[in-house]
Amino acid sequence: MREQLQNLVDRLAAYNAATVVMDWDTSTGSAPEEAGEYTAKLLGILAGEAFALSTCDETVSLLKDCMAEPSDDEIEQAVVKRLWEDYEKTHAIPQREYQEFHELTSKGMRVWEKAKGTKDFSLFAPTLGKLIEKAKKIKGYQPKKDGLTLYDLMLDEYEKGFTTAELDRFFDGLKKELMPLVKAISEKQDEVRTDFLNRPCDVESQKAFNRLLAEYLGFDLKRGVIAESEHPFTTSLHNHDVRITSHYDENMVASAIFSTIHETGHALFEQNNSDEITMTPLSGGSCAVHESQSRMFENMIGRSEAFWEPLYPKFKEVFKGQFDDVSMEEFVRGINAAAPSLIRTESDELTYCFHIMIRYELEKMMFDGEVSVDELPKLWNQKYQEYLGVEQEDDGEGILQDVHWSGAMFGYFPSYALGNAIAAQLYHAMDKNVDVEKALRSGDLSPIRAYLREHIHQYGTMRETKKLLKDATGEEFNPDYYIQYLKAKYSKLYRL
Amino acid sequence: MREQLQNLVDRLAAYNAATVVMDWDTSTGSAPEEAGEYTAKLLGILAGEAFALSTCDETVSLLKDCMAEPSDDEIEQAVVKRLWEDYEKTHAIPQREYQEFHELTSKGMRVWEKAKGTKDFSLFAPTLGKLIEKAKKIKGYQPKKDGLTLYDLMLDEYEKGFTTAELDRFFDGLKKELMPLVKAISEKQDEVRTDFLNRPCDVESQKAFNRLLAEYLGFDLKRGVIAESEHPFTTSLHNHDVRITSHYDENMVASAIFSTIHETGHALFEQNNSDEITMTPLSGGSCAVHESQSRMFENMIGRSEAFWEPLYPKFKEVFKGQFDDVSMEEFVRGINAAAPSLIRTESDELTYCFHIMIRYELEKMMFDGEVSVDELPKLWNQKYQEYLGVEQEDDGEGILQDVHWSGAMFGYFPSYALGNAIAAQLYHAMDKNVDVEKALRSGDLSPIRAYLREHIHQYGTMRETKKLLKDATGEEFNPDYYIQYLKAKYSKLYRL
Repeated sequence: MREQLQNLVDRLAAYNAATVVMDWDTSTGSAPEEAGEYTAKLLGILAGEAFALSTCDETVSLLKDCMAEPSDDEIEQAVVKRLWEDYEKTHAIPQREYQEFHELTSKGMRVWEKAKGTKDFSLFAPTLGKLIEKAKKIKGYQPKKDGLTLYDLMLDEYEKGFTTAELDRFFDGLKKELMPLVKAISEKQDEVRTDFLNRPCDVESQKAFNRLLAEYLGFDLKRGVIAESEHPFTTSLHNHDVRITSHYDENMVASAIFSTIHETGHALFEQNNSDEITMTPLSGGSCAVHESQSRMFENMIGRSEAFWEPLYPKFKEVFKGQFDDVSMEEFVRGINAAAPSLIRTESDELTYCFHIMIRYELEKMMFDGEVSVDELPKLWNQKYQEYLGVEQEDDGEGILQDVHWSGAMFGYFPSYALGNAIAAQLYHAMDKNVDVEKALRSGDLSPIRAYLREHIHQYGTMRETKKLLKDATGEEFNPDYYIQYLKAKYSKLYRL
Repeated sequence: MREQLQNLVDRLAAYNAATVVMDWDTSTGSAPEEAGEYTAKLLGILAGEAFALSTCDETVSLLKDCMAEPSDDEIEQAVVKRLWEDYEKTHAIPQREYQEFHELTSKGMRVWEKAKGTKDFSLFAPTLGKLIEKAKKIKGYQPKKDGLTLYDLMLDEYEKGFTTAELDRFFDGLKKELMPLVKAISEKQDEVRTDFLNRPCDVESQKAFNRLLAEYLGFDLKRGVIAESEHPFTTSLHNHDVRITSHYDENMVASAIFSTIHETGHALFEQNNSDEITMTPLSGGSCAVHESQSRMFENMIGRSEAFWEPLYPKFKEVFKGQFDDVSMEEFVRGINAAAPSLIRTESDELTYCFHIMIRYELEKMMFDGEVSVDELPKLWNQKYQEYLGVEQEDDGEGILQDVHWSGAMFGYFPSYALGNAIAAQLYHAMDKNVDVEKALRSGDLSPIRAYLREHIHQYGTMRETKKLLKDATGEEFNPDYYIQYLKAKYSKLYRL
């Protein structure tokens, strides 16, 4: 990369890393309780610095020069394109406004935590209202695009190229094909035994097993760490510092396991970013593709019998006799059980997309001004009853369950559902090249990692999702693989 | 503060906080093993950013405006003065040079850690050589001052107003007055029993007791945290986020205790900085005054019988019977025992200043070019034999024992000795206003904290050390209090 551009990229990477570490420090309980407000201010200032750098005259003129005389280097081209797009999206936002927005999101998280702790949405509602208004205002500075709503622009922020028109079609398809399956399964709850998954498993043993699991999947612990937080997440400074968290509950052994597999899926993406793109704006991965990796590992790989064949004896050993009466077949059936429920992160593979659909429908309404903040819990409850037939007891297990809105990440949820669909499409393509089941049964996942590294991980966000998917699978985005996968799996499991 | 100045101060505070958190993250083991090199680069970039901001045209013109039309506000005046001094010291340093220097110090720490781990100075020597050269080069950009050497300028960096001329007098006085005492005590080692201090005390109980101790001293754990690191230290983002570390050894219960008291002394200073100066360049405290607080708490307060009177029963209780045969009098005599030894941080109050003196003499020689890096271990050993009559077994307990040089903190050590002297002078003044012994025996240390807050802590570095000391004690810096205190205490303890 030309020197001036490298210098800009380095400086942006440093701001990003500072923010990542300060967020990590807060989220994993390293920071003291009362530091939050002060530290939020400092984070807001850092965000303002990065913003000022991305939009200053010198940067604009550098990017224009780079575009006038483009490099042959694919990476440099992609970096320039990304930085220019970011500039176009943000330069009209007054710096103070941008900084205030970041302070608000930082504060939002603390307010949400308190509200969640007391299960009281009314504590969070005023802040949520402000977050929506501020997010709309910030988006309003962006150049309008023909036929796109504010919420389309929000979606575009997280997954380029997917609009409400496309998502409406996608979710309508899921609704049509999967709602009958959800209903049929609700009526056959006795088919699959899951009681043993609530047997007490001491947290220290859980930690040991989860660490083993992450390493088994290929998470390099010399270039990564595992910690604890309320809500599991993955973050990274660069491909040599990738961090995941889990959350342990003595009576929910599977919860931490599938969180760890999920986050390790993300972490493998980050650790396998090429050295050329790490610490550049191309590092990481787009939201949906990132989620395709975490969900592929969590569900398509992590809940398969082939995966557990080499691991189940170790699992039984770690939990000293607690599962001696449970055969591997029963265990695998148990971890795949489906039942409509309230909590997205604990929900099964089949009903998961309905949780996303509800958020998506609410967000659209919030952005179109069709619903006020105060009406949200009621609407939330109505939709959970309609799609899943379940009712919340309090806001904690309802509208407060997820952290995302507290950080103004409106438009993010749909990428979770897209990620599942992309995972199924990628798995299908991978399986034509790598005998996935054989690799899993042998206990050596390296062919799987090599495939994903070659086709996905190394590129970070260098290629847009639709192109990346086409390059890897030879096909356009096609949610049918996802629908067919779920139908086949659950019809068999519940003998429908 | 006028708005533009406040904005500058805020931005500098944000850079500082980012660096503090990233350093904390590395030092407390939150970051993965192989992240170091990459993260060092990012820290270097952040240092470069702060440097560029401190020295850019806009900042210079703002500071000139502030000086041309000075504010009535003492804090604004002091901030402007400090920023201008920093500018004068640093603006001639090319930004790339400054950044490389910071990368080198970040790398230095990792190299030192490895060298210390293998007790092999030769691993660290080349990096130390580079650090010295780079530190000299950086200092060379600073305006010369009449009659001051490069090392004088290094000293000035950490403690304004104290030169080698003054320090030579100070150390000569200590040598003359205290060496006979050290010698006399070496010959009376049977006088004080210390064996019980090496009884095994499980680390979890130690952690519990140290936490209790920090809180007892007044460390506010809602605005602070305690963690672990190889070398105990204190750091802070602002007065609502102050962090200390300790290091536990099962067979050295007193080691963690006095580390914790020491670091809490620092932490009280940081937590009691006024809200007006926190997150400004006036926060914290000068090195020597900071050290006066840690050493006053560690030694003058923490090793007194009055201090232990309310605490000793709790101590015995936490370590379940391990000290039932040790009376409080014996315990207090034990923790005050003096014996020439190799490790500064484990050394007693009496011999401590000789460790500093040795570093000081070596640093002077290093900066005057009188000694090469390779000769340091030999010279180190000679001086330890001469002043303390002890001989090292390896570099780990010799020249590699302290982290400071790995961060190019040459000129820092003398402030440790000055801190002890200042502590004695301050204690003497405080004792005229507050009945210190009575407060300690009562178990309520709030009058002590209130005195220190009023006279020292609130000001941070707003007032220069010599002025602060004069304001608090009514006297110029006077090391006699320190010498007299040590003579009286140790003559009594060893019945000389």
